[in-house]
Amino acid sequence: MADNVAPYNKSINFAEKLSKFNDHWSPKVIAEMNDYQFKLVKVLGDFVWHKHDDTDETFIILDGSMRIDYRDHIVELSQGELCVVKKGDEHKPFAEVECSILLIEPKGVVNTGDATEDTKNLTAANDAWI
Amino acid sequence: MADNVAPYNKSINFAEKLSKFNDHWSPKVIAEMNDYQFKLVKVLGDFVWHKHDDTDETFIILDGSMRIDYRDHIVELSQGELCVVKKGDEHKPFAEVECSILLIEPKGVVNTGDATEDTKNLTAANDAWI
Repeated sequence: MADNVAPYNKSINFAEKLSKFNDHWSPKVIAEMNDYQFKLVKVLGDFVWHKHDDTDETFIILDGSMRIDYRDHIVELSQGELCVVKKGDEHKPFAEVECSILLIEPKGVVNTGDATEDTKNLTAANDAWI
Repeated sequence: MADNVAPYNKSINFAEKLSKFNDHWSPKVIAEMNDYQFKLVKVLGDFVWHKHDDTDETFIILDGSMRIDYRDHIVELSQGELCVVKKGDEHKPFAEVECSILLIEPKGVVNTGDATEDTKNLTAANDAWI
């Protein structure tokens, strides 16, 4: 979005925003609420194991389905479902076919969390607005 | 939900949760992220003019359509759209037919905000979990 000015008091259409990009694992900011950001991301295949020591993180599935693997269980997610990943809990997102997600988390969160090795070049720039 | 223990690391299905209640303008908490809550609400007809002086507030339309009136403009919202109401801005939600919404806001926010008169008995209890 021009000038990274967060939009307030207006309608933001997920499908219209999703039509503007095709890359995977690269969240795009569409709005802010206080010090939180709403980000759209398309995912496909395997992400890396990681955790966020300072914050919970919310996934809302907009289209398709995906999986979040934890060390002790697996969460299957489809369109119309939400999952809050608990602060500090190791997880690894995975999608067999492309899935479109709305992420909600505080500004400045790094998508690969604490992962320092084997990030497969998946660490994305922050504040990429569309 | 039993014991008001916020669910983490599991799938929460909006449609399944929406099937559990029918009242209007009475938000039900389904999850927490840090000090924020996710609430489902069904709306129909007119709400009251109000504002939240301390926080932004997010509406995501899950089913149907609604309107948010501001003092200087109107925002029309349909399924698959998001609107962040800016902190301090007076607004009045309205829905001609029933609309199901996901609200995201900090814990403890009163739904009628600063409205003290003419709240039409619309002030809802907080922390009503489903």
